[in-house]
Amino acid sequence: MAKKNDKNGGKKAESGGPIVGVDLGGTKILARMVDPETGEAHGRVKRSTPTDGVESVLDAVAEVVRELDDWDESPAIGVGIPGPARRDGIVAYCPNIVGWDEPVNVAKELKKRLDKKVYVSNDVNCGAVAEHRLGAGRGREALLVVFVGTGVGGGLILDDQLIVGERGQTGEIGHLTVTPGGRPCGCGGQGHLETYAGRLGMDREARRLAESGTPSLLVQQVGTGRIKSRHLAEALEQEDKVTVGLIQEAADALALVIGNVATMNDVPLCVLGGGIVDRLGERFLNQIRTSPSFGGLGPDFVELALAQRLDDAGVVGAALLAADRAF
Amino acid sequence: MAKKNDKNGGKKAESGGPIVGVDLGGTKILARMVDPETGEAHGRVKRSTPTDGVESVLDAVAEVVRELDDWDESPAIGVGIPGPARRDGIVAYCPNIVGWDEPVNVAKELKKRLDKKVYVSNDVNCGAVAEHRLGAGRGREALLVVFVGTGVGGGLILDDQLIVGERGQTGEIGHLTVTPGGRPCGCGGQGHLETYAGRLGMDREARRLAESGTPSLLVQQVGTGRIKSRHLAEALEQEDKVTVGLIQEAADALALVIGNVATMNDVPLCVLGGGIVDRLGERFLNQIRTSPSFGGLGPDFVELALAQRLDDAGVVGAALLAADRAF
Repeated sequence: MAKKNDKNGGKKAESGGPIVGVDLGGTKILARMVDPETGEAHGRVKRSTPTDGVESVLDAVAEVVRELDDWDESPAIGVGIPGPARRDGIVAYCPNIVGWDEPVNVAKELKKRLDKKVYVSNDVNCGAVAEHRLGAGRGREALLVVFVGTGVGGGLILDDQLIVGERGQTGEIGHLTVTPGGRPCGCGGQGHLETYAGRLGMDREARRLAESGTPSLLVQQVGTGRIKSRHLAEALEQEDKVTVGLIQEAADALALVIGNVATMNDVPLCVLGGGIVDRLGERFLNQIRTSPSFGGLGPDFVELALAQRLDDAGVVGAALLAADRAF
Repeated sequence: MAKKNDKNGGKKAESGGPIVGVDLGGTKILARMVDPETGEAHGRVKRSTPTDGVESVLDAVAEVVRELDDWDESPAIGVGIPGPARRDGIVAYCPNIVGWDEPVNVAKELKKRLDKKVYVSNDVNCGAVAEHRLGAGRGREALLVVFVGTGVGGGLILDDQLIVGERGQTGEIGHLTVTPGGRPCGCGGQGHLETYAGRLGMDREARRLAESGTPSLLVQQVGTGRIKSRHLAEALEQEDKVTVGLIQEAADALALVIGNVATMNDVPLCVLGGGIVDRLGERFLNQIRTSPSFGGLGPDFVELALAQRLDDAGVVGAALLAADRAF
């Protein structure tokens, strides 16, 4: 049973040899062979994600795996997916994959196609596992990982194990409420963390401000294009007022939520990564640490550290999870 | 090792016979024999908690246990304690027990005195375990338990197991921040949940309002005495404006925090108990459910239910934990 596999984490799939890891994204599928001890990857097969339905996507994943040298020697296949993945391999929906709007048992479908044990996990959780096993969280028993990019995602490790949750949704930190009734979120909620700290939320707010008479270097720079992390960094460097304000709001929102989650779950370390954090670095972490909004038992209760930006972390994390949990 | 015992939760201490459960409180110590299968308790020894230091308290716990009939047939002793209890039995401090201001290895000290396996746990966590195993959370894999009384405490059950945390502090939901810079909390923080939803926080706010010219039935009723849950219920019934406002603030704060914690940890059920909830009942739960402040993915993501108010839940939970985890 999936659950028992989860609990007895140490129980490795037979061999100690390389394990296939797959990162199934909205635009591309990447597969590599990963050494479960060192996390080193070799081989690399990549293709575009089909847009004509889930069957095609699953076939494409199987094809990509079969094109990897020695894939058949792998005892298991790990797959990271941009949606909530339950421990039994069922993925309810994947907003970024065209046509994926009802539950699919991905584990079962891939087993059918590849005749291997499979473990399916959320892609953000795969990245969190990589940081835990090989990155800035190495050796830590409990860890919160937060990726700040277009949106905000997270992963929670307790007792050395990734927590998945009954519905596969543990770690949805981007949808924790910072300000009830605040900025509208893509999920239909309001005032969620990612509306303040995610790039898309800042983009919307910068344009709203511009339209209501407060222009900024940010909007000036990108016109109708998307605001990227480097635009934020550049506008910050030029001390653009709106940008300085947006980044402070992001830091305050992250400080509130990270402090609260760390307190509730007694987590002494939070590793932060993702486009915005990678670009703004330690200076941004310091803004979070010193924010007057820091939640729960405060910044002394939880250390903040930069993620190590591991290569192909999603693929590596998926393979590491499969090594422990595939069934 | 404590940790391994935690992980393989099912591993019971030898026999299936009754287990000693102890509730060590600030004013009294209560010990009973608990059937680990049914949770039924028999025998009852009670005494006041000594106030002349931790050694005396530990001696008193051992004495109370020895006075229980057949205590020596119990394979293990479970102890609930009003402080953060680590899995290795170390309790850093107990603010409610006189003289307990530095770490004590309670498990080791009691083993020395009683020559039995021991498991020490936070008292609120013991109550949460009782609700999970015998009360409103029975049969649920994941569960958040929140007790709303003088303060606000909680317990988190994931994958059928109580989560304790590295520092024994998992579940400190009362110290999650609702409003940065808000009402001062006893812990030194500001705007924490228990300053809005705990009886002590409401008491302080009612007096502050009275002093600044907004009197209430609440303060009028109790004078300089403590506001109790029944005073809140009575003033509510008479539609006292201040009380109505305080209870709405409490519901809003609970809604924000419970929604956020349930979302982060993917918990589909929250059981609420404690003096205020017991007194205000389903009507208060409805106020929480319908609060515009409900956090995270909203009230559809987490069901709320009243706790079952089990007899001696602390003692029972301590014994149930010891049955699984004592070492």
